[in-house]
Amino acid sequence: MIISIVYDSGYGHTKKIAEAVAKGAKQIEGADVNIIHIGEEEYPWETLEKSDAIIFGSPTYNGSISAKLKTFFEASTRAAWMDFKWRNKITAGFTNSGAYSGDKLNSLITMALFAAQHGMVWVGLDLHPANPDNPLPTKDLNNLGSWLGAMAHSLNDSPEVTPGESDLKTAEYLGKRVAGITSRFIK
Amino acid sequence: MIISIVYDSGYGHTKKIAEAVAKGAKQIEGADVNIIHIGEEEYPWETLEKSDAIIFGSPTYNGSISAKLKTFFEASTRAAWMDFKWRNKITAGFTNSGAYSGDKLNSLITMALFAAQHGMVWVGLDLHPANPDNPLPTKDLNNLGSWLGAMAHSLNDSPEVTPGESDLKTAEYLGKRVAGITSRFIK
Amino acid sequence: MIISIVYDSGYGHTKKIAEAVAKGAKQIEGADVNIIHIGEEEYPWETLEKSDAIIFGSPTYNGSISAKLKTFFEASTRAAWMDFKWRNKITAGFTNSGAYSGDKLNSLITMALFAAQHGMVWVGLDLHPANPDNPLPTKDLNNLGSWLGAMAHSLNDSPEVTPGESDLKTAEYLGKRVAGITSRFIK
Amino acid sequence: MIISIVYDSGYGHTKKIAEAVAKGAKQIEGADVNIIHIGEEEYPWETLEKSDAIIFGSPTYNGSISAKLKTFFEASTRAAWMDFKWRNKITAGFTNSGAYSGDKLNSLITMALFAAQHGMVWVGLDLHPANPDNPLPTKDLNNLGSWLGAMAHSLNDSPEVTPGESDLKTAEYLGKRVAGITSRFIK
Repeated sequence: MIISIVYDSGYGHTKKIAEAVAKGAKQIEGADVNIIHIGEEEYPWETLEKSDAIIFGSPTYNGSISAKLKTFFEASTRAAWMDFKWRNKITAGFTNSGAYSGDKLNSLITMALFAAQHGMVWVGLDLHPANPDNPLPTKDLNNLGSWLGAMAHSLNDSPEVTPGESDLKTAEYLGKRVAGITSRFIK
Repeated sequence: MIISIVYDSGYGHTKKIAEAVAKGAKQIEGADVNIIHIGEEEYPWETLEKSDAIIFGSPTYNGSISAKLKTFFEASTRAAWMDFKWRNKITAGFTNSGAYSGDKLNSLITMALFAAQHGMVWVGLDLHPANPDNPLPTKDLNNLGSWLGAMAHSLNDSPEVTPGESDLKTAEYLGKRVAGITSRFIK
Repeated sequence: MIISIVYDSGYGHTKKIAEAVAKGAKQIEGADVNIIHIGEEEYPWETLEKSDAIIFGSPTYNGSISAKLKTFFEASTRAAWMDFKWRNKITAGFTNSGAYSGDKLNSLITMALFAAQHGMVWVGLDLHPANPDNPLPTKDLNNLGSWLGAMAHSLNDSPEVTPGESDLKTAEYLGKRVAGITSRFIK
Repeated sequence: MIISIVYDSGYGHTKKIAEAVAKGAKQIEGADVNIIHIGEEEYPWETLEKSDAIIFGSPTYNGSISAKLKTFFEASTRAAWMDFKWRNKITAGFTNSGAYSGDKLNSLITMALFAAQHGMVWVGLDLHPANPDNPLPTKDLNNLGSWLGAMAHSLNDSPEVTPGESDLKTAEYLGKRVAGITSRFIK
């Protein structure tokens, strides 16, 4: 089972989330996880075609996904969409920005619309929003209250400082969940 | 395998689409299909809990799903969401309005966000947009060009007249696709 | 200058925000402010037709505006939309939910689409997201990071406790901003 | 009164719509209209800062605005957003794609969210959807049924052929409407 995580990251915050998603995915037996940082190499179309799941990640800049991730989306038209090479792959998304809400939802929606165009199957988060009164583990997960995908919040500081513990654990949960559903789906 | 179609319909146009979705779902072996017209009976929570897939349908009124379907959504908070009774069910959506585009996308997005809150797994359309130059069958399917779910277009006339052939065939395709993926997923 | 605030509130949290918006609007000279709690009275179509600005507010339930506000939206089709009685009125929106992000953006988008259908002119927030390093007053305003409209966050407690100070001040800012722009526009 | 139209166009279809918007804007007395094709020159920040209205246009590719327009959006963070240089400017949007609906709404929403972040004031279309039974002129305008902004539909052919007459007239109407409202607003 191959899980690929395709993401862009401007200053390293989204990269940290991508790594947390990967950590979660690896917890499912048989998961072979690729982390692909868009722009650092050729787009790996063959790896993506062989993947059972592709998870997209992006900072939210100016109310939507980054231009770099969008450039990759556009390149996928010829490389994958024309022949529906990603049809029925499991997919999900995550995003980060410098505000608790901050139009992040529009980035996740934009990813979900893109994935739907490819005929992919979208998985979100089955988590109540974080609340001190919740039973564990949802007490601490899903701090921002997001379901379509995982959201994280970073300040203008080092990725060592933000995103915080809850956001990283939520991303890890998403990765594990996607790998688990993929495992069930490809049997 | 139980597939439930939960929809609202003001004048019968969306009802016709719901029936087309059901017709498609029944083409998959083993599919037991329920059509639930919201508001005509008690909300069938037990049937929904037993369902392997739940497909949502609504007219697009004033830029979003109907208040009647939204009322059902709100009732699901206690009936299903608190305990994640719909977790990992397959889901999809369809909508109809009196314009080719007509903010229908917002209705589908609103359904997808609702379904994600329930931890459901969203399936869209793996179809190129209709075009005379397309190879069959996508020559005639997906006339409006929608992927997150199925869209249909009706005029202020009898449901006998609109939605048209392509929209109904697209809805049928969606039903079959959802049932097929559900069948694969629950094995 | 007449400013009307049309809102729904389930447990009183959104009502508090509506009052904060009203407080802000009244700070502009000549502003006559109506607060209309949907469902407590007949829909006041005449007041709305005479208004120079209409601001919409709703809790975010299940990923979108409340069914009660949506019911009002649907009633406006005959009462106002057919003859574009709200054409060119200034408009804005606010929403509240029990999570920092919590799909609130979809509620604001749904309001903005509705308002656009009516030919209204949409005003959002010209505020940087809250940050301790910001110059005043944006240090404390816009805590959740929203621009299309004002967002607030409440817990399952008394409206006396949440929404918090920043969210209420942000709502007040929105009211003042809408009234100020309306004042400029109707001259 | 300065109206600027900032757009991207891949094959010339969106360019034709931009020209129709400009044609409409010029019908308002005193309107000085700039058409800015993103990517063909340096981003004209000074012209934009002096503009009373900025209208955004983009093809819808893969479910959202083009990466080229998004790159411009991101550049505006330092050039305009930090100091709210576009605060209270009138704004609007248009988009084109190869399907009647085709996720175009997400492009318009993405533009509206971006504009809201800049503190701009959004104007849409006050038009009923096209219908043979409508009174003129809305009989022929707004063929696709869009309000947040103007939508157009093009095939894979020459921009001489598509977008069609109704879409171009609708774009022209939007340009005139934005210029008219801007004229009223800046007095």
